Amino acid sequence: MNQRRTKSDNQTRGARRKAADAGRKPPVQSDDLAGFSELARRTQEPPISWLMNMTLARPNLISLAAGFTDDASLPVAETEALLREILSSKKEAQKTLQYGSTVGDPVLRRLTGERLREQDGTSSDPEADLYRPERLTITHGSQQLLYLVTECLCDPGDIVLLEDPTYFVYLGITESRGLTCRGIPLQPDGIDLAALEQTLERLKREGGLSRVKMLYLVSYFQNPSGVTTSFQKKARALELLKHYERFAGHPIYLLEDAAYRDLRFGGEDIPSALVAKGAGDRVIYAGTYSKPFATGIRVGYGVLPEPVLRMVARLKGNHDFGTSNLLQQILARALGSCRYREHVALLQKRYAGKAAVMVNAIRESFPGKVEWQPPAGGLYVWAKAPRRVKTGPRSKLFKRVLERDVLYVPGELCYAQDETRPASQNEMRLSFGNANEKDIQIGISRLGEIFREMVN
Amino acid sequence: MNQRRTKSDNQTRGARRKAADAGRKPPVQSDDLAGFSELARRTQEPPISWLMNMTLARPNLISLAAGFTDDASLPVAETEALLREILSSKKEAQKTLQYGSTVGDPVLRRLTGERLREQDGTSSDPEADLYRPERLTITHGSQQLLYLVTECLCDPGDIVLLEDPTYFVYLGITESRGLTCRGIPLQPDGIDLAALEQTLERLKREGGLSRVKMLYLVSYFQNPSGVTTSFQKKARALELLKHYERFAGHPIYLLEDAAYRDLRFGGEDIPSALVAKGAGDRVIYAGTYSKPFATGIRVGYGVLPEPVLRMVARLKGNHDFGTSNLLQQILARALGSCRYREHVALLQKRYAGKAAVMVNAIRESFPGKVEWQPPAGGLYVWAKAPRRVKTGPRSKLFKRVLERDVLYVPGELCYAQDETRPASQNEMRLSFGNANEKDIQIGISRLGEIFREMVN
Repeated sequence: MNQRRTKSDNQTRGARRKAADAGRKPPVQSDDLAGFSELARRTQEPPISWLMNMTLARPNLISLAAGFTDDASLPVAETEALLREILSSKKEAQKTLQYGSTVGDPVLRRLTGERLREQDGTSSDPEADLYRPERLTITHGSQQLLYLVTECLCDPGDIVLLEDPTYFVYLGITESRGLTCRGIPLQPDGIDLAALEQTLERLKREGGLSRVKMLYLVSYFQNPSGVTTSFQKKARALELLKHYERFAGHPIYLLEDAAYRDLRFGGEDIPSALVAKGAGDRVIYAGTYSKPFATGIRVGYGVLPEPVLRMVARLKGNHDFGTSNLLQQILARALGSCRYREHVALLQKRYAGKAAVMVNAIRESFPGKVEWQPPAGGLYVWAKAPRRVKTGPRSKLFKRVLERDVLYVPGELCYAQDETRPASQNEMRLSFGNANEKDIQIGISRLGEIFREMVN
Repeated sequence: MNQRRTKSDNQTRGARRKAADAGRKPPVQSDDLAGFSELARRTQEPPISWLMNMTLARPNLISLAAGFTDDASLPVAETEALLREILSSKKEAQKTLQYGSTVGDPVLRRLTGERLREQDGTSSDPEADLYRPERLTITHGSQQLLYLVTECLCDPGDIVLLEDPTYFVYLGITESRGLTCRGIPLQPDGIDLAALEQTLERLKREGGLSRVKMLYLVSYFQNPSGVTTSFQKKARALELLKHYERFAGHPIYLLEDAAYRDLRFGGEDIPSALVAKGAGDRVIYAGTYSKPFATGIRVGYGVLPEPVLRMVARLKGNHDFGTSNLLQQILARALGSCRYREHVALLQKRYAGKAAVMVNAIRESFPGKVEWQPPAGGLYVWAKAPRRVKTGPRSKLFKRVLERDVLYVPGELCYAQDETRPASQNEMRLSFGNANEKDIQIGISRLGEIFREMVN
């Protein structure tokens, strides 16, 4: 699917550069990447483009692949009311339509911190308040925070530990920035701590610990697996990182991506890693209002240890010197009123309903040998076929499903390149986010038919 | 003002890494940058933060430093009307509040291209139409485009040619990404072409041409100097780049930053470099709606040769996978109706008036030995004191002016680090963008008093 560039590209380029530096005229490069940066050369077409092209090419396609949210429950009336309020006061309106600061609106940062503190169930301790606005920055979606944090911490060749499977757009960042990934298997309550420890121990033994910069966890209703990490696992993972960083010679951060936290429709909310002992200087929390409010209003945020925050703000200064003030004011008002809470409550009901439709359809049509778990939040169901049934973009299953106008995300796209372990090839991500109930039923039923023919 | 890190930081770090790789426990780094990337280590606190802190610390300060636009003419009623239209149709509203594509809304890209083609006065030639939507991408302000293009093309150690002086936030990008800058003196009609040729020739002789990736020009009412580059100079500069790239072995791009183009209140509009012969595969045009519409609605765009566009889109996929759809729809509607044009016409009058206030105040109070030019657009007047009168942040002049509660941008912040030439230290940028007329008069008059005491 992706054309991987080989080492020889770089060698040719090196030779060309030498020739040029020696004043001789090197052959002009004919490929499209002539003169591009090493970073660009590492950056492949993302799988998401390819999936989107599939969708465009088949107008009747039922996409259970898209990470889009539910159209019908987007907050149209709420946004209209919020904007009317903001723009009706001239002073407020002018502030809203003017540049803000790079780290973001102080009111939005305060309200975001307060809400998070409340969710985490911790009282406000002025001495060690990890939720204070000075530790927060607003970003253009939480994706931007993930990018900035990675840019801040990682050089090419550095190592990021992450879940098997993980958020595939993050893998685009690690690939582009030339990072080495180590996948840690995911269990029903979060990463396998024994595997995490083994990996860290092996890296220590092999002298690779000095390149380890962070552990990236998508901790709530994970994209793609739907798994939520228990608080105990987060706390223990942090302890392990703190133990091993002594041999690394620098901090190893825990980057917690809580993008789906507010889309919970079952079970209790679990405190973030910020509550764990020693979180203050090592936990980076990435949150977003895109998914739980409106994906067209891209506002994310981060809670960061001070040195990281300071540097991320500098980097953001170079990227865009601040997220659109208009977008921030919409969220500040939504949070400051009851509107954000009300909308989230509505979304939770809505996704609970759509998840139930998918779950029921799966129960009816998937053969018993396909493993899956009913989700308690988020937008996804993760399904695992028997090992011999491949689900990849070139697999028979994928093609047969596509012929029936149904699209899923092949599970292998969610595994980092990590030669130290084989990546699974028999899984898939099914989204109930954007498709309507009827299409979810039809899509799952068609998928089930093909599964029944191929799996037994 | 900035603490520059020295090479020894990297050496210490290297030693530490070696110790860690050998399995020994290296000393834990005590500085805040422990474990940060090389990019982060190169990234200094931007001068803009320091200037903004100055402003916050002095509530009565008259800031002639801020690059903010005029509050009173921000399009409050227009934005309100546009949002009402967008959100009143449910289908439109849902589309607006949902994710879009990474490269941006097709209608906004089409309208942007059409407007630009019209401004450039070229007819639509379907064969070589450089303004077609497929060559455009939307970004979160044009700053993001500058970042993405630089990330796409430049490795640490690569060379960017730019104007002396230039847009200082761009210098933050070059510094952070470890680029070498070569400053080309600016004349009243754009860069000194003879100097450009000499620089390219010297680089060829020294074997440095293979590291040259682009020439960055802020071509309309330049920030900071107010200079507009003639079309002839743009075309000739492109010819020169094309001549020398044969010895580089890869394309050398012309990145034209047209951020202030629409804020023209004198003279004729000048065609962009896209009109020049051979522009199709070498000119990158960066535009923005932030300055001419609303800085709180951050929407910028780029017109790019196809290979660069394709890569920039991939990189943006990793940065944020698309600019907020809500922001894009506001602009698409503003452009599709008469509202954008009308607002720009209003702004042009408004800034013409404010510029006149500043120009008159300068005429009245600055001594003849201070050189400056009345601007024909943009937000800035550039003033040059006699060489012995320093204007930098530690200068007597700067301090005396600040004591009188007036702030300007020291000119030296707008010069790249380039040891091959001395940077000027006796200039300043004065903005009439955000300050009101009265403050402009008072500020300039106080500055004039101090000038009269110090310059004669």
